[in-house]
Amino acid sequence: MRFASDNTSGAAPEVMAALMRANEGYDRSYGADTAMDRVTALVRDLFEAPEAVVHLVATGTAANALAIATHCPPWGAVFCHTHAHIAEDECNAPEFYSGAKLVLVPGDHGKMTPGSLTAALATTGEGGVHGVQRGMLSLTNVTEAGTVYSASDIATLTALAKAQHLPCHLDGARFANALVATNASPAQMTWQAGIDILSLGGTKNGCLGVEAVVLFDPAKAWEFELRRKRGGHLFSKHRYLSAQMEAYLTDGLWLRLATHANAMGQRLAAGLRAKGATVPDAPANMLFPEWSPGTHDRLEAAGAHFYRLNAPEGRERARLVTSWSTTAEDVDRFLAAF
Amino acid sequence: MRFASDNTSGAAPEVMAALMRANEGYDRSYGADTAMDRVTALVRDLFEAPEAVVHLVATGTAANALAIATHCPPWGAVFCHTHAHIAEDECNAPEFYSGAKLVLVPGDHGKMTPGSLTAALATTGEGGVHGVQRGMLSLTNVTEAGTVYSASDIATLTALAKAQHLPCHLDGARFANALVATNASPAQMTWQAGIDILSLGGTKNGCLGVEAVVLFDPAKAWEFELRRKRGGHLFSKHRYLSAQMEAYLTDGLWLRLATHANAMGQRLAAGLRAKGATVPDAPANMLFPEWSPGTHDRLEAAGAHFYRLNAPEGRERARLVTSWSTTAEDVDRFLAAF
Amino acid sequence: MRFASDNTSGAAPEVMAALMRANEGYDRSYGADTAMDRVTALVRDLFEAPEAVVHLVATGTAANALAIATHCPPWGAVFCHTHAHIAEDECNAPEFYSGAKLVLVPGDHGKMTPGSLTAALATTGEGGVHGVQRGMLSLTNVTEAGTVYSASDIATLTALAKAQHLPCHLDGARFANALVATNASPAQMTWQAGIDILSLGGTKNGCLGVEAVVLFDPAKAWEFELRRKRGGHLFSKHRYLSAQMEAYLTDGLWLRLATHANAMGQRLAAGLRAKGATVPDAPANMLFPEWSPGTHDRLEAAGAHFYRLNAPEGRERARLVTSWSTTAEDVDRFLAAF
Amino acid sequence: MRFASDNTSGAAPEVMAALMRANEGYDRSYGADTAMDRVTALVRDLFEAPEAVVHLVATGTAANALAIATHCPPWGAVFCHTHAHIAEDECNAPEFYSGAKLVLVPGDHGKMTPGSLTAALATTGEGGVHGVQRGMLSLTNVTEAGTVYSASDIATLTALAKAQHLPCHLDGARFANALVATNASPAQMTWQAGIDILSLGGTKNGCLGVEAVVLFDPAKAWEFELRRKRGGHLFSKHRYLSAQMEAYLTDGLWLRLATHANAMGQRLAAGLRAKGATVPDAPANMLFPEWSPGTHDRLEAAGAHFYRLNAPEGRERARLVTSWSTTAEDVDRFLAAF
Repeated sequence: MRFASDNTSGAAPEVMAALMRANEGYDRSYGADTAMDRVTALVRDLFEAPEAVVHLVATGTAANALAIATHCPPWGAVFCHTHAHIAEDECNAPEFYSGAKLVLVPGDHGKMTPGSLTAALATTGEGGVHGVQRGMLSLTNVTEAGTVYSASDIATLTALAKAQHLPCHLDGARFANALVATNASPAQMTWQAGIDILSLGGTKNGCLGVEAVVLFDPAKAWEFELRRKRGGHLFSKHRYLSAQMEAYLTDGLWLRLATHANAMGQRLAAGLRAKGATVPDAPANMLFPEWSPGTHDRLEAAGAHFYRLNAPEGRERARLVTSWSTTAEDVDRFLAAF
Repeated sequence: MRFASDNTSGAAPEVMAALMRANEGYDRSYGADTAMDRVTALVRDLFEAPEAVVHLVATGTAANALAIATHCPPWGAVFCHTHAHIAEDECNAPEFYSGAKLVLVPGDHGKMTPGSLTAALATTGEGGVHGVQRGMLSLTNVTEAGTVYSASDIATLTALAKAQHLPCHLDGARFANALVATNASPAQMTWQAGIDILSLGGTKNGCLGVEAVVLFDPAKAWEFELRRKRGGHLFSKHRYLSAQMEAYLTDGLWLRLATHANAMGQRLAAGLRAKGATVPDAPANMLFPEWSPGTHDRLEAAGAHFYRLNAPEGRERARLVTSWSTTAEDVDRFLAAF
Repeated sequence: MRFASDNTSGAAPEVMAALMRANEGYDRSYGADTAMDRVTALVRDLFEAPEAVVHLVATGTAANALAIATHCPPWGAVFCHTHAHIAEDECNAPEFYSGAKLVLVPGDHGKMTPGSLTAALATTGEGGVHGVQRGMLSLTNVTEAGTVYSASDIATLTALAKAQHLPCHLDGARFANALVATNASPAQMTWQAGIDILSLGGTKNGCLGVEAVVLFDPAKAWEFELRRKRGGHLFSKHRYLSAQMEAYLTDGLWLRLATHANAMGQRLAAGLRAKGATVPDAPANMLFPEWSPGTHDRLEAAGAHFYRLNAPEGRERARLVTSWSTTAEDVDRFLAAF
Repeated sequence: MRFASDNTSGAAPEVMAALMRANEGYDRSYGADTAMDRVTALVRDLFEAPEAVVHLVATGTAANALAIATHCPPWGAVFCHTHAHIAEDECNAPEFYSGAKLVLVPGDHGKMTPGSLTAALATTGEGGVHGVQRGMLSLTNVTEAGTVYSASDIATLTALAKAQHLPCHLDGARFANALVATNASPAQMTWQAGIDILSLGGTKNGCLGVEAVVLFDPAKAWEFELRRKRGGHLFSKHRYLSAQMEAYLTDGLWLRLATHANAMGQRLAAGLRAKGATVPDAPANMLFPEWSPGTHDRLEAAGAHFYRLNAPEGRERARLVTSWSTTAEDVDRFLAAF
């Protein structure tokens, strides 16, 4: 009953097995390992993007901060949701790497809207040299509220940014979960929807620690490499990053793991709703249910792990996250305790 | 015959086994895993430093850059050897993290001397507010030239720095090799010799990718944590860093691996000298031999890997690095090809 | 009829005369000029702060950015009003100098409230190492909306910050106007109200280009000097900054100029209200009136300068700023044209 | 007998008069003043560069740091002389603004040579992503040793840089003195010799505090403006910068002032040599003479101001700087005291 976060899970057996295989013998360092070529080929194939450049780092914060720094100048604004991970949970890493300012775009349920983005764009960069300039757009999918943008949602928002000539980033720490939840293809959710650079998460969905940064425009590839090294994010024994990502993307493992995580999330949501909890629509693997007072204590006493959140008077609210390793039995025990 | 770098080796079986064990079940994220407590206890015990604070990162550049940023203000000078890794091989990462300037201190065989450090200290920070201020000292052991500082060498240099109230950092990417080469204890080589913060390398000596930063003064611990997160170097599934470092430091594995690597290095040095190569004294696992023209081609034709370096007219020069996984047979085949 | 900004005015005759006198002969450079000692003495006397340290720079953005960088760590949040000058008009300079993040605190009429600050404090720094930490408070007086905080307002807000151990900055680009508008003494408005560091504006109120940064706690004085130099803000011929500030603070010139500017502002406000414009309460020298459509064009046709602002449907809105050099005739001609 | 620095002098009467005239009435702020258009026209005409973009700042450190940041990426190396002002006297400002690393190029008498620059270029940027990349060249004329590069010297050095596609900066804090000393035209010394961006000093040569940054390639103009604002270096009452620079460049004032300063320097050099001092060749306004022990004290007792420098055993060494305001009588009194 470990629902605090998908990062409390371990790694999938296929990933661990790949790591073991990668450990045999000697290999070139710093990204020149042969597995990295296979990773690039896999990404290009899966994303129908034969020119895409792929670089690996070990953390999502590194992926996001480097992606942003590569696309936004120090005097630029990064338009992101008020509660975006880059705004709330990365201790200023995006600002540190880029020098840019985050401009917060509101919206219910973790999603900015065409209206709120239009308003933010309209009031930024209008002060000539005095104010921050419009820099780039950064979306998150699955959002921090557990909701998802459809590929069409994304295309609508990126079109607003592109009308201002702004590059567009997608923080896909839970990208596989978003794909599964929306039945979109990788290409549909990214470059076909106007995304220029993607943080493609592996860690939360069955890897140990690896994120792929996918640059659909290869023009920034060398700059990205220099920023990665300058940030201390280039692995010498890079083969261990490649091995994880290769296994993750091979034979659809990433989507199978996400499908399972989402299914467990929906089983949990359905069960909670059936028992009277209020569970806002969240089609992937992260739920923000409300329930009546006393429930928190009762669930924890039964051994459940989750985050307690602020709630309206007379209610309790929680964050529950399922993962590739959540079992139906975990869910059902939780529901029984509930 | 893979002598290009110790980072082309894999990880030791004990480390891989620990990684597999760490993968079982759920664990707390972001450094709150139980193995991390054991890592801290191991370091404190091995270094006879019950107050030391230990934090893990995945790369040596991250360890160094964060250590420097935590101890040197943006207007400070970091005194380091002309060919220090932080000066030549980290793409400005120390400057990026700290804002400081590296002041290069010369010296033969990769080692600064009391004289060259005294001279550098004397000519820095004398310009009042106009020039860079004296900031900190950073030494490397094993040095980039394969030589080692004894604990006493280090104490002499740190005393010069401490007379100016400067904190002292040791880049120990090959710290175990230096310990073995000098028969010093961890405490003798570090805090007893005036070192305030240590980058304790695991990656090159049998791990996949982990370095411990050891702060002998706990006052900077929280700042270090914030800088680590802000740099994107805090792992969510931190247990995989802890597991590596725990295995590495348990039952003397780190010293056994380094002892082997050094022994292979010395076997190689002795063999080359016996066959007429010039091999400068280098008591650990990294050699910079010179030999006659044509040797490079002959060795590579036989399947050897190493770095070709610039050499005096009429000579050839190479960098050879042995590791925990180098075999005596590798060495002997190389010598035969030579 | 130049009401666009107080920075379109020239410098007061007393300031120009002082500049001419300062030009005689030779003087020490980089702040060691004798006039600077007199400036420090004047500030200490006027602010009843015998320990205060004073440094001069030439622009308000430099003063603010350096003040913030000296008091807020790179992982900190600067709590400021949504429309603060540091947030909207300094092209990320505070972030550039400090590395910090600005957390925007809302409030009507350019003023944050105890409630809005309490809410911002409550939701920042609660995420452990993941989120930005609470860093400092920055208030502006006169505010960007032309309103003023009383000394008591400031004390209430700084008390909330100090309960979290946060240093407090006052952006006083129009500090003299705020003093005059509230009848507060310099000490009452600053250190007695919890302000640790003040940007004391001279430029807008009759100088050519000079701002004093007053550090009520001398502990940060040397760091400030290093940051000023590192930012390129230390003048070699510093005497010309000192001369301006000395003349400005001598014999109450600064307060006389501000008294006049405010009086012109209030004459304008009263006249506009009498003629039917809506003029929100703004007791200093900056007004944000609303009037009926067509007025903008009519005023400009008559030769008036001001900023056109966004307005509600069916209305027009302007920013009007008076200065030390505004004449009653200017005001009356404007009212006549209106 | 004030020979410590040319920044202990005041401003020329023509400059002060222009400042007074500029103070009349109202003017547009932030560089939109009409005098700025005239400054740009003057620079374009004097430099025979009809496309050049000109921006003003108040300090030489700001001019240099902004020029470098605009032309060198954060992972780049700035090749400069070991004793360049940007290396020794700007408290890391160039690194702060650019993120770049200064690579020190040696050379006698303050001048790098084609050989030393070639060597530095050859050993930088060869490490792939690991090391700092080649970024730009920065020369200083007059050098910190009082020597000068001829236009031809500059062209030789910039050609080496341009073979590596590096932009070239000239720190011309004493640019007028260099022109006069070499009989070069502004165009010959700059863009015709491969210079892309110039810090054109006014402060040391008769202004209060103003430096023009001249971008011969207008492509970087907007970026420069944003960096200037973000650094806090955009003056609101910009007219006072424009007025200084306009007067300085009008009717050859800048060259007349420099001609005088240089003549005084050469009068001093000739007199000292005639009386037995060793005065290295230095054809502008800055001398580094050596003389016998006791001379320092004797000169200071007579009222002379200068910098004492380190000297070989049994000698004394000084820095003497003449300026536009040095009189022949000053020089002769100094010689008499000597």
